Formats: sequence, C-alpha cells, structure tokens
Amino acid sequence: MSVRVALLGCGTVGTEVVRLLEDQAGDLAARVGAPIELAGVAVRRPGRHPGVRQELLTTDPAALVARDDVDVVVEVVGGIEPARSLLLQAIKSGKSVVTANKALLAEDGATLAEAADAAGVDLYYEASVAGAIPLLRPLRESLAGDRITRVAGIVNGTTNFILSAMATSGAGYAEALEEATRLGYAEADPTADVDGYDAASKAAILATIAFHTRVTAADVHCEGIRTVTAADIAAAEGLGCAIKLLAICERVPGAGRGTAAGGAGGVGELGAPESVSARVYPAMIPLSHPLASVGEAFNAVFVEADAAGQLMFYGQGAGGAPTASAVLGDLVAVARNRVGGGRGPRESAYASLPVRPIGDVLTRYHVSLEVADRTGVLSAVAGEFARRGVSIAAVRQTGGEADGEQSAREQQGARLVVVTHGAPDSALAATVEALAGLDVVRGVESVLRVEGLGRPVSTLGVAG
Amino acid sequence: MSVRVALLGCGTVGTEVVRLLEDQAGDLAARVGAPIELAGVAVRRPGRHPGVRQELLTTDPAALVARDDVDVVVEVVGGIEPARSLLLQAIKSGKSVVTANKALLAEDGATLAEAADAAGVDLYYEASVAGAIPLLRPLRESLAGDRITRVAGIVNGTTNFILSAMATSGAGYAEALEEATRLGYAEADPTADVDGYDAASKAAILATIAFHTRVTAADVHCEGIRTVTAADIAAAEGLGCAIKLLAICERVPGAGRGTAAGGAGGVGELGAPESVSARVYPAMIPLSHPLASVGEAFNAVFVEADAAGQLMFYGQGAGGAPTASAVLGDLVAVARNRVGGGRGPRESAYASLPVRPIGDVLTRYHVSLEVADRTGVLSAVAGEFARRGVSIAAVRQTGGEADGEQSAREQQGARLVVVTHGAPDSALAATVEALAGLDVVRGVESVLRVEGLGRPVSTLGVAG
Repeated sequence: MSVRVALLGCGTVGTEVVRLLEDQAGDLAARVGAPIELAGVAVRRPGRHPGVRQELLTTDPAALVARDDVDVVVEVVGGIEPARSLLLQAIKSGKSVVTANKALLAEDGATLAEAADAAGVDLYYEASVAGAIPLLRPLRESLAGDRITRVAGIVNGTTNFILSAMATSGAGYAEALEEATRLGYAEADPTADVDGYDAASKAAILATIAFHTRVTAADVHCEGIRTVTAADIAAAEGLGCAIKLLAICERVPGAGRGTAAGGAGGVGELGAPESVSARVYPAMIPLSHPLASVGEAFNAVFVEADAAGQLMFYGQGAGGAPTASAVLGDLVAVARNRVGGGRGPRESAYASLPVRPIGDVLTRYHVSLEVADRTGVLSAVAGEFARRGVSIAAVRQTGGEADGEQSAREQQGARLVVVTHGAPDSALAATVEALAGLDVVRGVESVLRVEGLGRPVSTLGVAG
Repeated sequence: MSVRVALLGCGTVGTEVVRLLEDQAGDLAARVGAPIELAGVAVRRPGRHPGVRQELLTTDPAALVARDDVDVVVEVVGGIEPARSLLLQAIKSGKSVVTANKALLAEDGATLAEAADAAGVDLYYEASVAGAIPLLRPLRESLAGDRITRVAGIVNGTTNFILSAMATSGAGYAEALEEATRLGYAEADPTADVDGYDAASKAAILATIAFHTRVTAADVHCEGIRTVTAADIAAAEGLGCAIKLLAICERVPGAGRGTAAGGAGGVGELGAPESVSARVYPAMIPLSHPLASVGEAFNAVFVEADAAGQLMFYGQGAGGAPTASAVLGDLVAVARNRVGGGRGPRESAYASLPVRPIGDVLTRYHVSLEVADRTGVLSAVAGEFARRGVSIAAVRQTGGEADGEQSAREQQGARLVVVTHGAPDSALAATVEALAGLDVVRGVESVLRVEGLGRPVSTLGVAG
C-alpha cells in the first residue's frame, strides 16, 4: 500500500516539497507506515522544472486531481481560483487536502471546511500561516482544552524585514523596500505584503481557530506600512520602542461578565456578548518586548490562554524549505490517517462570536503634530482629546525653543507629540481628524498605535 | 454518547484538570462532538478533596481503571509505580491514556508505547515536558516530515528560578533554594529538580521523539546545579554570560557522511554511524542569547530541523493550570478519536541510533583555578591542555598583582581562568583532573561548560 500525492504547483515551496519527499523517502515511509509517492505534479510550464521527473509533470491540474489513484492533493499555487475549485473537486472525490493557501482560507475557508466535513476527509493548512513555525496545530489541538484569549505577533516576513532594515540603517521606506526586493524578501509586486493583506489573511485564520469562530479576511481591520517613515522609526527609538507590523486577534469581553482573561482589550456595552477583534497595523512596541527583537524575515507569535498562560512561538515565517516543512508535517498526518483510518480534527466554529469593528476596540495612539508655535496651541490640542474622553499619557513639545519675537516663533512652528492612554479606536481616530482641522495644527505628521505596554507579559524584561 | 474519564491523582495538576473539565464542559462537548464526563477520581485521602464531587472519589485506582464504563485514563500521580501498572492495566483493557509522568516515560516509555500499539489505543503525554508549552505534538506531528537535528533549552522551572534569583540578587545557591522553596517553586525534597533528574527525564523524552530513537533517562548525562556558586554567576556575568541548566539533545554526524546539519556538535570516527547525544548540565550562555532572558520558572526550547530551520517555543513550564492545559489538549485529542474512530500517531522509534556518551561529545569548558603565584604556573597549566589536544580560547589571570618578594606573592596565590575551544568532553574532563593534581594548582574552583557561542543562532542578537 502507498499513499499517492498529487502536487499542484512547483514554485519555491513546491520544489522543496518534491525534494523533501525524495530525500526522506525512507524515513517518511517508516513514519507513515507506507511509502508516500508522487502521482503527479501540475505546473504551467513543464520546461521550467528540470529537477522533477518528467513523467510526473502535467499541465492539466483538474485531470490530475480527478485520478482515482490519487489519495491526497497538496496545493501550493496560491490565489483564490483555480485553487478553490481544484481543492473542492479533490475533497468531493474523497481525497484529503493539504494547502498553504492563506488568501483562499481567509476568504472562503468555510466552504472548504464544510466540504471536507461532508466528505469525511482531512483538510490541513499549517503552511498558510507562519511558515515553518508549528502554530495552527498547537492552537487547534494542543490548546483544544483551554480558552485562548489572545494571539498576536509578527506574521509577515517581508514587512518585518523592511521595518528592521529601516531601524538598523535609518533608511526610508522606499529604500528599505528596494533592498528587500533585491534580496528576495519582497516580490516584484509587494502589495499583498506591504499593505498588510497577507498578515490580515493570516490573522483571519488564526482568529478562526483560536476563538472557534469563523473570521474572514473581510473582518480584519488592515493597515500596512507604506506610511511608516524613518522619522517614525527614530521617534519610536527615542521612546524606547520599535515599530512592527502586528497582527492582533483577541477576545473582547462582554460587559457584566466575569472574564478570566481580564482587561483583554475591550469594553463591552451593558449586556453586550463576548466578541472578538482581529486587526493588522504597524505599531510601536517597547524595545524590551520580545517581539521587538524579532528581526529580518523571522516571525513570532504570542498566544495567551486561560490555563496555559503565555506562550510564544518563533521561527522562519516564509521561504521554500520552511514552508515545505509545514506542508510535509501535514502530509504525514494525512498519510497516517489514510493508512490507519481516522481523521484529523474537524473545523470548530461553533462559538460564532460577533466580530468587533476596530472602532470599538481599546487602542493607544502616538500622534505627532506639526503645530504653530503660539499661545493656546496646547490647550486647543488637549481640548480635542478631552472632548472625546481620551486620556493623555505623555506629551512632548519640541522646536519652540527660539525665544523672542512672536512672529519669528510662529513662522518656525513646533512639533507636538501626544501618547494617549487606552481609548476606543473610534474616539482616537475622531480626535485625530478634529486635530487636523484645527487652525493651530499645520499638519498631522504621523499616527501610530502603541502596543505592549501595561500588559503583564512575562519576566522577559517587560514592565507589567 | 459520552467520553468517560478516570482521573488518577488530584494534586496540584489534578485539581486543575477537574476544574477545567467542569468550567469548560459545554465548549469541550462542542469541540469533541460528545460530552467528556468524569467517571471517577482516585486519591489517597478523599477528605482532602472537598472541591471534588464526593461520589467520584475512590481510594481504589485499580478498580476505577478496570471499570467497563471508563474510556480514557488520565494519570497525574507521577512516579514509576503504581503508575506504570495502572497505565498498563488501562491500556490492555482498551482504554486510551493521557499522562504527565516524565519519570515513567523516560525510564520505561517503551513498555507503554508497545502496549498501546498492541492494544490499538492512544498514549499521549504532552504534559510530561515543558508544562503548557506545546512541544511534543509539534515535534512528533508538525515536524514529522522534517529531520530534527537539535532540541535544546531550559526545561526545569525550579532550577531556572534558583539560577535567575542568584543572578538577580547575588545570593548563593542555598539562599536562592530557600527562596524557591518558600515561594513554592521548589518542593520539600528538591533533589529531582536540583540534581537535574527532572530535566534528564524530559531530555530523554524529547530525544526519543525528535530522533525516532529510544532514549531513556539512563542514556542522559546529568549534572545538576548544587555546585553553582555566586562566584560562578559573577564570573559568567563578567564574560557577558548567564548560567542556565540546559537540556541538550542533538544528532552527532557520523564521519565521512554529508550532514545537512553540519557541525552539529560531534565528530565521528571514520566510518562511524550517525548517533545522538542527550545531556543536562549547567552552562554559561551569552546574555544576548534568547535563553538567557528566560526568567523565573518559564521554560524555552530551541528546535533545529533541516527544512524548518530554527524554531523556539516558550511558556510556563510547570504549575497546576499550565500543566492541566497540556493534559486537557491531549484529552480532547483522545476523546475526538474515541468519538470519530482513529488513533493518534504511534510511537516512532525506527531509527534506533546509538547514543553517544558524553565523553565523545564536543563541548567547551570554563575552568577557574586557584594557583600559586610563581614562575612556571601558566606554562604548566597550558601544557596540560596542549597535551590533550585542547585549544584555549581565552585566559585570564588575576590576583597576582602584588609585586615584590616572591614569598609574599606565593602566599597570596592567584586565580587563573581558562575558556577552551570545543574539544571532546573526555579530553576536557581529563585535563581538569590532571590540573587538580599539579603542585602549582591549589584548587579547581569551578568547571562549567560554555554553550551558545559560535552557533549561528538567529537575528535575535546572537553572534554567529
């Protein structure tokens, strides 16, 4: 008996999947209890794959998926179609599937999960989030007897490389993006990464598993890093912070209910049920926070659960071999099930919690304003915050050092930086909008959220 | 249909298991597809468990395990017997088992695994290593399609708390142990923790899973922390290092074979096959190494695999709730299998690699000697290293500052610290023994291994 695999796609990841299957054939057979054999590899241009045995190559993925001698379909092409149709075709014909397709899972994971459930086959997708780092299996299985309250961290290697490069060299965004592209950390069209969509897809997948609630990409508030400047990075450093693109998924407690998590980031209205929040944005975090030292294209994710407490997972979030490692892990699980009978855990989305819009979530802002240097500026600015119930944690005004003639000072202007305490994001956003409209505010230079303060993280040197 | 659980033991961990089962009954039923019910709880003194429904309590664990209405046995008592007999009895009567028993698994895991295999039932033990941190499932399942080369880190909370306290306060070992006991981080008899046996059991379990090779506690070289002094901690800090009790499991490449891992810590003789090493000892590691910032009772484990690269797992390594989280995760997995049919992955020990004794493994020593301050001392000491092929990386002599009369200097003595390059541990140990016998050496003050240098770890600030 053998387990026969149809591989869809043979790019960076697919090539490594083929290599790992060949290099480890003996070990895999011992671990599975039967050999894993490649039945075929569907590609667009067979000529471009000299390393793959030619008889395996085909340009007809649908025909490959339809074959009776195929047990498992592994999809590493990406994109919504034709991947979705091919995977559904595979599932409906009783084949188990392993995929790395974050965009598809975040947009329409429900369809795949329901089809897999109905057909009684496995659907695994560890490789869709955080590359080599075992993350989905721990969330779905190891913490299946616990209540996860928060999953947050760095899940996109491209943007982390760019922000790390900006911090290391003082370079601006465009220059760092260029370096990332040159070194292969960014694709020719980096939009999905730099605009946060990749991280948002991953956040949707993480939130779905963590909270047993279907969360799609559309539910995830998403801001990228295009507007992060070298000045922002320097300002952050001056505050003892780094800037990272964070994916944050957390439970938001309902009002009037005891929550074991306590202060998990939101305040519900009276009688409001528990809900969840999922968002992606660049944020300042203390340099002492472990996430601040995650450099280059590495990923790191913090998980908090009621009984387990705080966990952290760290490793390579992207790349051919790391992603292929995750694919192979799922493939062995699926193959073991084909050999021994049985299935992996089904999707669990029974909780069906509402998804909180970003406006309702408590966040903190770091706002940098260019202001006129004259009487009443601070009062006007502070008034806008107070008017919306936003408490200020820190203020710093610089640049108004020139004394002397009022007109000279006025011309020069000053910079006013405000760091708030936690407040509903909508109140903070409304305050910024109002500030932009004030006469005395010449411009809003920068708005960045602040995370990781005031959360009793661990003894990894983070202030509680 | 329900899944009925017999719980053996109701101490710190068992109490939390009961609480989690009750508090999350609805969620667990939704996730499993059937309710999980406690059939009985075996304890020694029923009067001591007022929080458990009295009708569940029994003082006859064997009778509880024998009941036909029990599907799963969860063992959180610890120790070799009667746990082994009870678990074997459970397995042989077709019940799946979940255990946290590191000592039993490290000493006789093979017997349990073979019995579980023969009976076709699940055997899970995530809670036996690293508390709440999902570690065994990732090693066994997520990395099942990869080749793990190294698993190393901090796996004992008691000793990590003690060493952290010594580093923070400058306290000596005895004082730090007292504080640990007072705060509940150390048991009344701390031997298993401070002598390294607990970490060694965990190393055996980790190595077995990582290398598909049966490794028992007896195979693990084990040194504890009783001999670590405040002076050692200070010396380490002076070198930019911290002292941690490390568990290190790694492949040792055979000679003449290409190894993807490269330099994984050992040199095989010509034609020698690949082997594995498992050891526990206190060691100096650079303060910049992520493990150095793991404080208090937290655990952290680095895993290296050929395709995945470097991974790190971090979290609470002990405690009632964290350990219970791991137990519950396994219990849900087992319950899902009972409901849906199927089994988890069987033990995989097919590789049967030889276990390398510590003597053959390349390590580095930090040796602190009290020496006579006179002519020829350095030459004599250096000669012992050279004679055994041990290369010296750094030397520092202090205390011989007093100039003047030879007799005065001789009386005062000096301290000589030598840090070696990598060499077979047996050569290093033999050198130390020879040094102790030299006239000019008044005493060997301290010998500590050095780890984490020269290993290209990551961009977490560690020098390659």
